[in-house]
Amino acid sequence: MTNSIKITRRNLLGATVGLVAAAGLNPRSANAQTGTPAVNPVAPAGSTAKPLPSYVNWKHADSMIVHTPTTIETKRSAIGSSIITPSDRLFIRNNLPAPSAADIGDVNAWQVNIEGVGKPQTLSISDLKRMGFETMATVLQCSGNGRGLFPGKPSGTRWQTGAAGCVMWAGIPVREVIQALGGVSAGMVYMTGTGGEKLPAGIDPNAVVVERSVPLAAMQDAMLAWEMNGEPMPLAHGGPLRLIVPGYSGVNNIKYIKRLAFTKEQTQAAIQKTGYRMSPVGQKGDPSQPAVWAMDAKSWVTSPSPDNGPVKAGALQITGVAMGASEEIAKVDVSLDGGKTWQIARLVGPDLGKYAWRQFVLATNLKAGQYDVSCRVTTKSGVEQVAQSTENAAGYLNSGWVAHTVKINVA
Amino acid sequence: MTNSIKITRRNLLGATVGLVAAAGLNPRSANAQTGTPAVNPVAPAGSTAKPLPSYVNWKHADSMIVHTPTTIETKRSAIGSSIITPSDRLFIRNNLPAPSAADIGDVNAWQVNIEGVGKPQTLSISDLKRMGFETMATVLQCSGNGRGLFPGKPSGTRWQTGAAGCVMWAGIPVREVIQALGGVSAGMVYMTGTGGEKLPAGIDPNAVVVERSVPLAAMQDAMLAWEMNGEPMPLAHGGPLRLIVPGYSGVNNIKYIKRLAFTKEQTQAAIQKTGYRMSPVGQKGDPSQPAVWAMDAKSWVTSPSPDNGPVKAGALQITGVAMGASEEIAKVDVSLDGGKTWQIARLVGPDLGKYAWRQFVLATNLKAGQYDVSCRVTTKSGVEQVAQSTENAAGYLNSGWVAHTVKINVA
Repeated sequence: MTNSIKITRRNLLGATVGLVAAAGLNPRSANAQTGTPAVNPVAPAGSTAKPLPSYVNWKHADSMIVHTPTTIETKRSAIGSSIITPSDRLFIRNNLPAPSAADIGDVNAWQVNIEGVGKPQTLSISDLKRMGFETMATVLQCSGNGRGLFPGKPSGTRWQTGAAGCVMWAGIPVREVIQALGGVSAGMVYMTGTGGEKLPAGIDPNAVVVERSVPLAAMQDAMLAWEMNGEPMPLAHGGPLRLIVPGYSGVNNIKYIKRLAFTKEQTQAAIQKTGYRMSPVGQKGDPSQPAVWAMDAKSWVTSPSPDNGPVKAGALQITGVAMGASEEIAKVDVSLDGGKTWQIARLVGPDLGKYAWRQFVLATNLKAGQYDVSCRVTTKSGVEQVAQSTENAAGYLNSGWVAHTVKINVA
Repeated sequence: MTNSIKITRRNLLGATVGLVAAAGLNPRSANAQTGTPAVNPVAPAGSTAKPLPSYVNWKHADSMIVHTPTTIETKRSAIGSSIITPSDRLFIRNNLPAPSAADIGDVNAWQVNIEGVGKPQTLSISDLKRMGFETMATVLQCSGNGRGLFPGKPSGTRWQTGAAGCVMWAGIPVREVIQALGGVSAGMVYMTGTGGEKLPAGIDPNAVVVERSVPLAAMQDAMLAWEMNGEPMPLAHGGPLRLIVPGYSGVNNIKYIKRLAFTKEQTQAAIQKTGYRMSPVGQKGDPSQPAVWAMDAKSWVTSPSPDNGPVKAGALQITGVAMGASEEIAKVDVSLDGGKTWQIARLVGPDLGKYAWRQFVLATNLKAGQYDVSCRVTTKSGVEQVAQSTENAAGYLNSGWVAHTVKINVA
């Protein structure tokens, strides 16, 4: 990412009125002048200690927790208010630095090679835009979301709940592209996507390339997407073209996709062969272990949030989000006593399909005291969110409701 | 709007790397460095001639047409790609300057007086947040959207298609508030909302206050909203609290609402009494003329767009948006010959309810030539978008499909 793409109208207008040290204020909301953060009246100390890196300086700083320049989380309290997570509040997790705008040039000229089909072909985004158009909402969730809530200390970024968002994509269904190219060749078992990141020189490409294989069946609902939330796909999120594999965790949604191949074997790339495996604690990843592919049913409370300090006694709306991963949800139960008793929450807002999340709310009335607020989603086929996910070496796919419980102090 | 709220993290980060005259580039998308606008490969000359005013310097400059500092339109080509219009691409139309952040202070302490109910009460946003939670998608459309497409020259901003967006609101249904306050008092006929803008001194308040009355029935689905598209309601869009009256044109959706009253008469404010009336051409507004309230069924093509220059012969996806105003839509027809023949388009993307819009697409294949591309929505009860709206003095509520026809040049 070069400096030149930081030069925006926003920057320029800011410069014309003089700049003071008031980072983190939001010009859109009323609290900018008072210095109170718009989203979190009582932000946890140090949560905004690291500034946003320049390639995502358009993110809403007060909503984000910067772990590292390539791992940036949405605060629990900043995600639950809309069915679609605004782009400037969506988490960032990049395995390699994004290509620069110069690397990409004209977005419509970006090409993807389609292989393992009747008539292999190289297609540009312009070509794809002429072939079809569809939109789709999915939960985009980092494989390691919730890692920081495992009782052990799995290696990797200690994400809480915020390496996830519900995103609206626009593009063309992969099945339509494949149909136009004569269908998938006989005997293929996997759909393998290759990212277009620039690889560091002098290293075996397989050691670093972002190339992932998923079961062929995932093709059915996959999409080659050039837009996200109504804007051209941002570079930081995989623009100009990203493979969306709904129901599969983040790493399987290949950014800057340059090759989409139907293959007999999984890729030999390290990120597939030994990386993103459900390895027992203390063991290294290997191909015999399950790959991190499909996500699990999961829900979490977004408000009240530990971000927000004590809650006033009396009426209270408890809100959250619930995903069925690849299945519609039937209900969400909420507990105020850490799982001893449960009440059914009301689903609120639109149903954007089985790959999206639903919002829920429980209207309650609380006296002063301590509460352990938990939630648990059940899908239409009866799959219930687990109480505890099995901890694994890299802390992937934590969906246990116990670990996602929020302790609130009502005063 | 004071200077201090322009001081943002974005501005600061921009300042640290030095600023050059490159206004309008979008750091999110790949074309920033090449200087090609992200949305419009061939932007019409002069369309971005006026810079964004400082209070909305967070808008996406390349997507907007700045008519005046308080009338800012979304380009036709920038709006059609997502069911929800991103906040930074949503139009602006303010009758008075927005309150400053200093005027408002703590957003949760903002108060609204509820009158004309069993137990009149003053409620803060904090109170409202404890009472209920709902989300709702509506088309927000300026009463004058399409004015510039009337053949005459009605007075006012010459909006094309872009003084409209589909927005997701979060807040509390008005009916829940009213229920908690003992219901609407007997004999009330209107719901009257008063905006909290600071009024210029020395002028009769009724001459300038933004106060609008709508029929009582509109209460049923109305909302007091504190969030828009997943973020605290931006000041420029009526934050911290806005009355949303779904199905009613923009002016009826009161920004910075400070009073919500159920009344026997319409307000005497000029904006109601003589303003926003369907006055015959050449006549002044008066209370005998219909008020500008409910919107009409309407649709328009978003791509191809005149913004984008010539279209390449061959396969083409024609996309657009269609609203039933307050009724679900049944179908959208598209014509390539200015209305002589029609084809049924495919509805695409989620159905967010009767007050939202739907996206549509028609896959076609065009030889070189000139085409007049029109679209026409039909609602479930059989209401068909009109061919031509009756021109009126102020050019309100233009929904005629003829005027919204796009002439494209296929080469």
